[in-house]
Parts: sequence; C-alpha cells; structure tokens
Amino acid sequence: MVIGCGMTKFGRRDDKNLMDLLVESSTRALDDTNIKNIKIDSVYVATMLAGELTHQTAVASALTDQLGLLPAGAQRIENGPASGGSAVLNGFQAVASGFCDTVLVTGGEKMRHVPGDRITDLISTMTHPTAEYVHGVTLPSLAAMLTRLYMANYGLTREHLARVAIKNHENALKNPYAHIHQKITLEGIYTGAAAEMNNPLVSDPLRLYDCCPVTDGAASVVLCSAEEAKRLNAKAVKIIGAGNATDTLALSERKNPLVLEAVKMSAQRAFKMACLKPQDIDVSELHDAFEILEIVESEDAGFFEKGTAQKAIEEGATSLSGRIPINPSGGLKARGHPPGATGVAQVVELTWQLRGEAGERQVSNAKRGFCCNFGGFGNNVTAFVLEGM
Amino acid sequence: MVIGCGMTKFGRRDDKNLMDLLVESSTRALDDTNIKNIKIDSVYVATMLAGELTHQTAVASALTDQLGLLPAGAQRIENGPASGGSAVLNGFQAVASGFCDTVLVTGGEKMRHVPGDRITDLISTMTHPTAEYVHGVTLPSLAAMLTRLYMANYGLTREHLARVAIKNHENALKNPYAHIHQKITLEGIYTGAAAEMNNPLVSDPLRLYDCCPVTDGAASVVLCSAEEAKRLNAKAVKIIGAGNATDTLALSERKNPLVLEAVKMSAQRAFKMACLKPQDIDVSELHDAFEILEIVESEDAGFFEKGTAQKAIEEGATSLSGRIPINPSGGLKARGHPPGATGVAQVVELTWQLRGEAGERQVSNAKRGFCCNFGGFGNNVTAFVLEGM
Repeated sequence: MVIGCGMTKFGRRDDKNLMDLLVESSTRALDDTNIKNIKIDSVYVATMLAGELTHQTAVASALTDQLGLLPAGAQRIENGPASGGSAVLNGFQAVASGFCDTVLVTGGEKMRHVPGDRITDLISTMTHPTAEYVHGVTLPSLAAMLTRLYMANYGLTREHLARVAIKNHENALKNPYAHIHQKITLEGIYTGAAAEMNNPLVSDPLRLYDCCPVTDGAASVVLCSAEEAKRLNAKAVKIIGAGNATDTLALSERKNPLVLEAVKMSAQRAFKMACLKPQDIDVSELHDAFEILEIVESEDAGFFEKGTAQKAIEEGATSLSGRIPINPSGGLKARGHPPGATGVAQVVELTWQLRGEAGERQVSNAKRGFCCNFGGFGNNVTAFVLEGM
Repeated sequence: MVIGCGMTKFGRRDDKNLMDLLVESSTRALDDTNIKNIKIDSVYVATMLAGELTHQTAVASALTDQLGLLPAGAQRIENGPASGGSAVLNGFQAVASGFCDTVLVTGGEKMRHVPGDRITDLISTMTHPTAEYVHGVTLPSLAAMLTRLYMANYGLTREHLARVAIKNHENALKNPYAHIHQKITLEGIYTGAAAEMNNPLVSDPLRLYDCCPVTDGAASVVLCSAEEAKRLNAKAVKIIGAGNATDTLALSERKNPLVLEAVKMSAQRAFKMACLKPQDIDVSELHDAFEILEIVESEDAGFFEKGTAQKAIEEGATSLSGRIPINPSGGLKARGHPPGATGVAQVVELTWQLRGEAGERQVSNAKRGFCCNFGGFGNNVTAFVLEGM
C-alpha cells in the first residue's frame, strides 16, 4: 500500500544539493501519511549517479541518519534510469516478505551543476561497453535510430512526435512540480518559420523538443502492508501488480528492435499479478525520455496494437480526457527526468490521480493506474499496477 | 535457502574486468546448484564503485544478459562496503515475498587498476561530507581513532592487534580463494628488528598489516524458497535470520563510539528472527577491514562482553579450533576486500563451512554460522544467521 507520497519541485535546483532534495521529498511523503512519528523499518534510496556527480556514496545510510530514522535499515538501488522503479519494487518486496512493516522509498538526482557533455557521457555508460559505448553511441542516437525504424515501418511522422511533446508540455502546465512550464505548438517547433531555429537538431531526426531535459529533483513514497495501513487508518492506494524484466544490452542483438521485450514482459507480469488487462487501466505514466519511447511503450504495455499508436495520437486517445491518458504529470518530457527520481515520481503521480488529488490535471474517474520505468535503452524495465481504495 | 555458491580467486586480477569477474563467480554458483538450466527470476548485483572505477553503470542488467538469464529481473545494490550484505538481504526478501522463486546474488569489485590515492579518496566518499570528508578523514584514520580509544579504555595492546592479523593470515593460507597467502609472525611485523620496516605506519597506531588490502574479486550465491529447494532436491543451507540497521554517519555524534550500535541492532534482529543466541553459533565471519573492527564486532554481535575480546584473543577462542572461530576464510584482512563482494563472500564461506566443504580450514561440527557486513564506518550493517541441513 502507498500511504504517503511527495516530491520536490523538479528543475534546475541550484539552491539544494542531492541530500537536501532527498530530505525535502522524504519529509513531504512522511508528512503526507498524517501519522505522527511513523516508524520506518527500512529506507530505499534510488540514484543513478550519486557517486559520479556528487562525490558521495552510501547515500541511503546518510539519508536515514539525516531524517532521524535510525536504526532503520537502508539500501541504495542503482539501475540506470530504472533505479526509481527498482527501489519501489525492492521496498514493496521488503514489506511483502514480512521483513518490514513500513518502508520509505526516495529517488533523486542532482545533475544540472555538471556540464552537459559529461552528463551525456555518464548516461552513455549504461550502454554496451564494447558494442555501443566505445563507438560513441549515446541515448539520443539510439532513440533516433528507433524513431527512423518506426517511421519506415509504420508511417509515423515528425508531426506525430511533436504532438506527443505538445500534449506532455500541456499537462505539465497543470503540474506545479514540473520542470518545464512552457506551452509549445506545432507552429513553434515544427511547421513555423522559426521552428527549425527554435528546435535544433540533436540526432537526426530528433530535435531538442523530442528529448527530455536534464533535471534535478527527488520523489518519495511510503509503503506498508495492508494490515499496517488498516491499523494506522491511512489513506491508501494499493500496489496490486509489479513486474521487472530485462532485455539484451546491445540493441543489435534484439530480434525485432521495434518491440521492447522488457516493457512487454514486465507489463505482462504486473497485469498477471493484478489479474487485470491493459483495457482496465484509467491512467498511465510511461517513460518518455524520447517521444518514440512513449509511443512504443504504449503498444508494448498493451494499450494499442503494434504500429497503431500514431492513430491513437491523432485521435487524442492519450490526452487528459482521452480513452487512456498517458503522462498526465507531463512525463519525463516536461515534468523532467532526474533518473533516480523518475520511477518513484511515476508512482507518486498515480497515487495522486487515484486519490483524486491531481488538481487541474486530474483524470476523471481514475480507479486504476499503470506505470513503466525504463532502464538503459529498454534493457531493464519495471512496471506497476495501482488501484485506488 | 542457499542452494549454490561460488567465488573467484580474490587478489590483483589484471586478467579480468569487473564484468568478467561477476560472470565467473555467477557461473560457479549456478553450476554449484547441480541443477541444469536453473530458472533465475531475478539477479541482484552488489558493487560499490562500478561507475566510478570501471565507467559502467546498470551492471545488473548487463550481467543478466551476459549470463543468458534474460528476461529475469535485475537490480544493483550499492551500500558502501555493506553492498554485498544488502544485496543478499534484498534477494532474500524477493524470495520471501513470493515475488521470486529463485534469485542469483553476485557481488564484485575491480579496484587494483586504479591508483591508491584515488581509491582512498573514493572510499572516503561514504564518510560524512561536511563533518568528516572535507577535513581529510579516511577510513584508516577513523579505525586508528577507534583503536586508540579501545586501547585507552580496555588495555588492548598492539600485540593483540597483531594476533588477529596473524590468525587471519594463517586461515587464509588454507583458503585457495584468498588474496594473501603469506604467513606472518609477531617477530616479522611486531617485535623483530625489521618489524618496523616491514610494517610501515598508515595512521598511528595502525600499520600496514593492521589494514585489509585493496582487492579485486567477486562472490555469488543462489537463493530460493524452502519449497523450491525441496522440489529441486538441492543441497541447501538455510538463512534463518537477517538484520539490517543504521547508525549516525558522523562518528562524533555517537554516544559511545566504542559501541557499534548498527552491529548490535542488526545482530539482535538476526538472532531474534532465528530464535537463537550468539552462544548457539559455531562459526562466524566478521568485517575485519581493520583488526579493531573484528574485535569490537565480536563484542557487539554478542560473542564476548564489552572490553573482553582481547582476553578471548589471548585464549585463542577465535582461532579455527577455538570456542567461536572468527574468519576461517581469512577475513577481509587476508582473503581480501572487494567491497561489493565481501558481504556475499561471507555467506559463501558460511555455506561451505555448514556443508562441511571448507577443506583444511573446516570448523569441526559447524551447524550454525553468523556473519556481519559493515558499511561506512559502521553506519549501515547487515547480519545473517545460517543453519546447515
């Protein structure tokens, strides 16, 4: 059960260091439980690059101390951009095993203080070291290749991509925690006279507005067992399904690169555990580090048939009022993407949606949510199904 | 249940990179189960400094791919030098929760290719960033202060320290996987004419032979549920107790620095879960990164009263044939200390001991074992109690 959640404002956070961000979001989640002096048995911290970017290791123990939660257990999980989802999964297992009654899961990253080329290099360290990294492969270049392949196979256009970005920016305008509060239009980034200048090439065909930003921020949830939630009389959202799966590290080894097998497997596992189908989901948070990922994930998670997601985009099916709203938070594209925080922030957004507390971006009648957190270039994915009470 | 275990030779491993070491020890543990094509549901990888020292992140997914275990889940745990114990704990919870039937836990580190001063700095990144790290505190300096304090309070001498090292080097001579195969004597490192020259000062009163080496290596265990072990007809050792606890990051904030609270709490938790007392343990692996740690941990785990461990050393109680043999493997001092591997290697050694497969270093009649893996300077500790079948 999720009995508390919170996050920091995402963005460029020159005012705080990583530990400050982790403390801020943790405190908000603990406060959100409305339980005074809640006893936490273990603290899970997700960060991808704490050691490399902030020169601090063993941050989970440090956070536990700073929050006054000693002698709770403490663990740090690093799984590339899926660190957050992995931390939620391990926190969930700690509770489900009976080893812990209540755990705090906090994910965060502090990146904006580091030059962009160093970030690009460090992010690339999760690609295959000899088949990809040494050849200069970066995450945007992999996304560009996937985009081209999808375009060639299914008739996706640059306008479809732009529509995903426009939707997510629009949603983020309604999310006070989002990194980017900027309305974008087809004319501004795609068709207008100044569009090319506003939207420079990153890796053909991807341009700036096709990629998520580098973001500082943290997000937290408090998890406990059903019995404990009842005992504490907590407002709770249930985690009813969880999945985690891997795929080949080198993209060249995949039978069909248009199918994200780890998304498919982790989603199937989560739905199987929840005894639900994708059609039962009312709201979803997907890992749109690039628009093509939202598109392909929405198919491999089971919301649309392969090769039809662009039709769904044309019909507005994924907008806030659509059949299956995707990324009401603004997603990685506009809420922002601090890798350690992202998977936790997805669960935070679903919790708010399922509690009916998402304000202007509330999806009406949201009873069940799905999220998927994508590590590497789809080689390690976690998926969760949540249900409101 | 531990149904398979294995490790690489510890030492300076210029012949292999980190991933090679992880693959080697994983393969040995999988082979050790004697189960053909065993299905692994999730892979837990512990490394402290993979990103910093080998420029590769998200190593758990990479290992899962390389072992041909796709689409198993994959997680990396980093918890300073307690990374290994934390990975075992999370693998244990994954099984105990019912989310996984069988998991592989592999810890490893590759450090010897990096200059010593950089290692010393990186290891220091787990101390308190503003109260300790910026003032030049290193792990040996913290251990030196603890040693001095213990000497002043309880009459510990440099000879007691030397005796711990001599015992662990002696044990390591019987362990083919150990980093250091070197018999040392009081005359060689402590009393003899050349002793000072052989054994230079590191941080007064600690000399070279009071500290563990920097080591490359990996260790692995395969865990499954009791039902699964029965179904697979596996030779199994049972994990009957587990604990994890934290203490203040800054040593100056501890009420009594001579008491390692996180050792005490994690051991108490593990013994409580196992329904056993320290007196029930036949063999133990403690985290002797410095001799003083073996000494204080042996008290705080409950084997000896506070301030009496040096008497136990004088009596030989902790030697292979003593009342409570400590570090039959040679410990961190002589088996070596690749931080990510250490906590897993402790469980591997206990498994061998409890299966009666420890060769020349076998503790006779070993039925129950205890181990403790120590993160930071005791701010994050895991403890396990194991029982043979």
